[in-house]
Amino acid sequence: MPGIVVQNIARAAPEVIDGLGQCGVATVHEAQGRTGLLASHMRPLYAGARIAGSAVTISAPPGDNWMLHVAIEQLQPGDILVLAPTSPCEDGYFGDLLATSAQARGCRGLVIDAGVRDVRDLTEMAFPVWSKAVCAQGTVKNTLGSVNVPVVCAGALVNAGDVIVADDDGVCVVPRAQAEAVLKAARAREANEGEKRARLATGVLGLDMYQMRERLAEMGLRYV
Amino acid sequence: MPGIVVQNIARAAPEVIDGLGQCGVATVHEAQGRTGLLASHMRPLYAGARIAGSAVTISAPPGDNWMLHVAIEQLQPGDILVLAPTSPCEDGYFGDLLATSAQARGCRGLVIDAGVRDVRDLTEMAFPVWSKAVCAQGTVKNTLGSVNVPVVCAGALVNAGDVIVADDDGVCVVPRAQAEAVLKAARAREANEGEKRARLATGVLGLDMYQMRERLAEMGLRYV
Amino acid sequence: MPGIVVQNIARAAPEVIDGLGQCGVATVHEAQGRTGLLASHMRPLYAGARIAGSAVTISAPPGDNWMLHVAIEQLQPGDILVLAPTSPCEDGYFGDLLATSAQARGCRGLVIDAGVRDVRDLTEMAFPVWSKAVCAQGTVKNTLGSVNVPVVCAGALVNAGDVIVADDDGVCVVPRAQAEAVLKAARAREANEGEKRARLATGVLGLDMYQMRERLAEMGLRYV
Amino acid sequence: MPGIVVQNIARAAPEVIDGLGQCGVATVHEAQGRTGLLASHMRPLYAGARIAGSAVTISAPPGDNWMLHVAIEQLQPGDILVLAPTSPCEDGYFGDLLATSAQARGCRGLVIDAGVRDVRDLTEMAFPVWSKAVCAQGTVKNTLGSVNVPVVCAGALVNAGDVIVADDDGVCVVPRAQAEAVLKAARAREANEGEKRARLATGVLGLDMYQMRERLAEMGLRYV
Amino acid sequence: MPGIVVQNIARAAPEVIDGLGQCGVATVHEAQGRTGLLASHMRPLYAGARIAGSAVTISAPPGDNWMLHVAIEQLQPGDILVLAPTSPCEDGYFGDLLATSAQARGCRGLVIDAGVRDVRDLTEMAFPVWSKAVCAQGTVKNTLGSVNVPVVCAGALVNAGDVIVADDDGVCVVPRAQAEAVLKAARAREANEGEKRARLATGVLGLDMYQMRERLAEMGLRYV
Amino acid sequence: MPGIVVQNIARAAPEVIDGLGQCGVATVHEAQGRTGLLASHMRPLYAGARIAGSAVTISAPPGDNWMLHVAIEQLQPGDILVLAPTSPCEDGYFGDLLATSAQARGCRGLVIDAGVRDVRDLTEMAFPVWSKAVCAQGTVKNTLGSVNVPVVCAGALVNAGDVIVADDDGVCVVPRAQAEAVLKAARAREANEGEKRARLATGVLGLDMYQMRERLAEMGLRYV
Repeated sequence: MPGIVVQNIARAAPEVIDGLGQCGVATVHEAQGRTGLLASHMRPLYAGARIAGSAVTISAPPGDNWMLHVAIEQLQPGDILVLAPTSPCEDGYFGDLLATSAQARGCRGLVIDAGVRDVRDLTEMAFPVWSKAVCAQGTVKNTLGSVNVPVVCAGALVNAGDVIVADDDGVCVVPRAQAEAVLKAARAREANEGEKRARLATGVLGLDMYQMRERLAEMGLRYV
Repeated sequence: MPGIVVQNIARAAPEVIDGLGQCGVATVHEAQGRTGLLASHMRPLYAGARIAGSAVTISAPPGDNWMLHVAIEQLQPGDILVLAPTSPCEDGYFGDLLATSAQARGCRGLVIDAGVRDVRDLTEMAFPVWSKAVCAQGTVKNTLGSVNVPVVCAGALVNAGDVIVADDDGVCVVPRAQAEAVLKAARAREANEGEKRARLATGVLGLDMYQMRERLAEMGLRYV
Repeated sequence: MPGIVVQNIARAAPEVIDGLGQCGVATVHEAQGRTGLLASHMRPLYAGARIAGSAVTISAPPGDNWMLHVAIEQLQPGDILVLAPTSPCEDGYFGDLLATSAQARGCRGLVIDAGVRDVRDLTEMAFPVWSKAVCAQGTVKNTLGSVNVPVVCAGALVNAGDVIVADDDGVCVVPRAQAEAVLKAARAREANEGEKRARLATGVLGLDMYQMRERLAEMGLRYV
Repeated sequence: MPGIVVQNIARAAPEVIDGLGQCGVATVHEAQGRTGLLASHMRPLYAGARIAGSAVTISAPPGDNWMLHVAIEQLQPGDILVLAPTSPCEDGYFGDLLATSAQARGCRGLVIDAGVRDVRDLTEMAFPVWSKAVCAQGTVKNTLGSVNVPVVCAGALVNAGDVIVADDDGVCVVPRAQAEAVLKAARAREANEGEKRARLATGVLGLDMYQMRERLAEMGLRYV
Repeated sequence: MPGIVVQNIARAAPEVIDGLGQCGVATVHEAQGRTGLLASHMRPLYAGARIAGSAVTISAPPGDNWMLHVAIEQLQPGDILVLAPTSPCEDGYFGDLLATSAQARGCRGLVIDAGVRDVRDLTEMAFPVWSKAVCAQGTVKNTLGSVNVPVVCAGALVNAGDVIVADDDGVCVVPRAQAEAVLKAARAREANEGEKRARLATGVLGLDMYQMRERLAEMGLRYV
Repeated sequence: MPGIVVQNIARAAPEVIDGLGQCGVATVHEAQGRTGLLASHMRPLYAGARIAGSAVTISAPPGDNWMLHVAIEQLQPGDILVLAPTSPCEDGYFGDLLATSAQARGCRGLVIDAGVRDVRDLTEMAFPVWSKAVCAQGTVKNTLGSVNVPVVCAGALVNAGDVIVADDDGVCVVPRAQAEAVLKAARAREANEGEKRARLATGVLGLDMYQMRERLAEMGLRYV
């Protein structure tokens, strides 16, 4: 039943979180076996934002943003709010007042499978948001939800304290317990990519660099 | 039956219209009881535009932009074109030639539950558009529609002469007769919000500022 | 059956291709009888790009980008990659490594009825992309598709060597054999539009300039 | 502001309502100048239902079905409930208990731009429903809406007391004041169609029956 | 440019067409290398219909069904009408009068990437339809399209005279020149499937029947 | 990383599973605090099916149904297959051969957030399916997924061995550990509903039966 606020959640180490943020969504998603990506309808409000932080999760009824006020009290510097409505909704749960409050608590951004408003203000404040919609539709404060319970947000399971990575490519969640291992894998991947990029830039083909020709021929690829 | 052009429509007072534009969509929508918002698929062609004006409405057949030419003659300086197709359509009804013509008549922008084209030109001309789609698909001029009749545009009823407010958050319609009252309510709301923002910025919680704790407890919220 | 790579495709003359690119999507689409437009969900990754080139087509299985590596070998300077998945898919088939490789071969851009990732890198590289989605979801290299076979991409038939024109308004395909004739028609149209624009800017109405009043009256339009 | 229940609404004459129901949605929609149709996402729960009645309208918050209980008290025999959420929602506002209650009051059916549940029961009860979705998601009773105020339901304006016609083709609204005239036009149309159908069944072509050949030639149609 | 009617199209042999119809959509689609399927939004109006026939294609403007009248004259017994709008449209292009006329000419059904109406009548007439939508929205007869030109319908290229196969699984197009070869492959596939079905029904696993275990192990599948 | 098959999963007691099936989706969803519902796009292939069983979960790549063969070996009588693609896909993963095989192992049905084909056969076999789409598009067997790992299917988290309940209202998942408690709550709810239904059928209003009038008045509802 809704109506629960879990306090004192565990978080990953700050240097791990920041490391994952530097790697970015595509690399982190690959590094953990192509899992954890939120659906592609989650788009940034403005281009160029790139964040990582610990998830403070919110399960909220459609058209009711009461739990956002409750969740903001649970924020610690470096956290990211993650809101999943209990049924599909595009209303504007979040605007400049809530952003001001969250930013004052050290919040790094919002990931919401619903709508936000006050786009101009949020952009000027440089408060990053990934959302399903921009929508000015107001919400009420009449029905309970929960804070820091597990939620499915845009198709991905998010537990409180999981690491959220978000940039222009979308949003990815890394389970807290795997964060350190994923960071290690992501960094290895990055090192590897730099070298590949340099070779490709000279005109070397992926077909040769990855030695694909033989396997393509075995599979039956025909040049005509 | 279609085929009607209503001339000499009534409009709200210019200072009321401009006042509503300064308040913006989210505030105006709240000030009139959370009504009047167009659906969230109505997005601005470019960021940063913020307008208000009197609606010159167009009911147009799918894929036929003839009535836009008829409507432009009805424009007065400060007006906004509002086009609703008679069935869902994403064709490009409007481009740089029509924008040039509308701008020459003092038109402040276009709200269209369909498509537009010549995006680069419209952006360079600073002619603001809120639309359902960008689409280069051409239209014909073979079938009548109507001008300045009531239309349902993106889910909202718009009468000719109603006030349209549009910004990065979307589009809102204010019935002409209520425009002055809504402006008053919107300004009161704005004044109130400035104070709240300042307090939230210092770290005061909404839970305390809005005195929500008692009601949340009554509703059964549990901290664990 | 998939698994075919057609080599040595014919291309239109470079000056025809570049001429079509200068005319832009809306004009070219009109000039060839309002045909050839890809669906409006094909949006540019960043504003302002404007390209034309010869199509190197790719038919790829959902979630499998192997054929992109095969296609890149077929690129000649001035070409544009056009990828159509064999069933609807939003996965991120293409990112900065493939873009580096394609750019090294002189490729002018990518048109893909699926997803791309590494948005920030692609934007910094100024590698233009029109896609259905931005999505970091990784792909595999396990199943054959084909290169330079006819594909239906976002609702439009594209043959290898056809001319692709893309800008902020979307994407249009011009059959290679018609490219020269379409360019001629497009230029005639452009010349004509400049004159019209100038007249409309002075306040002349389309109703008068296009002599629409008589036909509107015949159709039964009534002013009330 | 929401929170209003309008009582004692006017209704059209029963024989007019029933006559419109016999004509069906397509004919009625044509007879009133191709207006009044709700969006095509409004589908019947089961095939074969065909009703007409007076609209008792409901404006309800997303995920909150409290106002349905309020509206049921306003029902008179022959009425149809018409619910429009204040923002898009697919939750299951209505199931077998509410249907039992509405049916006990003589209600002929429900038109809802949201979801319903208990599909098996509603079908067995022969309580007709046209909805946007089937969805078991429960709703709450915490926030006010309004009853018998004008609503935009699935893109069409519905005033309390308007005539609703619904069948396998969808849903159409006829403004109360025009109901009698529309019925007359619809019956004329029906009479006319019977004759046409008989001629077409013998193999006579529409091209000849409607004398289209000349106009097609004038427009430039070429047979090759 | 639109405005063309191609007469005297070539058709596949009747026994080939009927053979493909007996095989059904899924088998035919597989037999021609998993190509030719129309998008999955093309749904039958009623369950159980299963047809095959020669395509008489129609390219029609949005909201204008004039060309259907032109196309019906081109029908020969055993043909199927295939309509693709020139831009996305859900209007009701086709109803019981046109179905009566088409049926009188021996038409076997309609495939339309748009809407139809008079669902009850079409079902009673047993006139099969696969469409994108059911929608009573009326259309006009003001703008030319073309008949028997190549169209892209729901994402698949259809040439006049191609074989259309449609059943509860959707719609598939077979290029006329390949129809005989595809039928042969489809029948071989069917024979093969009967034997497999019998073995699977006894509890034999696909893993064993298709000898998949070794390859799965090679790919790294782990049982835990 | 994908490529894992978990064997020997725990299941709920058969009488608990069957009890939940008798209660149905709407009641079970309410009984567990309005959680566990899959998204409303999951629709039954044919009306009237009503099942419950233990989830055997499948995480499968887009367009690749290899893991279904692996999963069928893990089925025990009374199980339900639950397939979630790793990215959105509507291909036809499942048809009559796989259904024959699953049915031979005692499988009660399939829940798949993707497409199925052979609709006619599946209906005749009375093999119940809830899916996102009907689509004949074929799939390959080239890439590994996993079996009996946690999946998010249509927005709901499903662990292997959880109880799946599905009927005409959709699909609901009950975590295995809570199944017995949820059944108890569901039965209490059902008993309660029977009594309410009887009273409502006599014309008693919900407003009175649930004693809503006072609270509505407090909230400010006005009758005019």
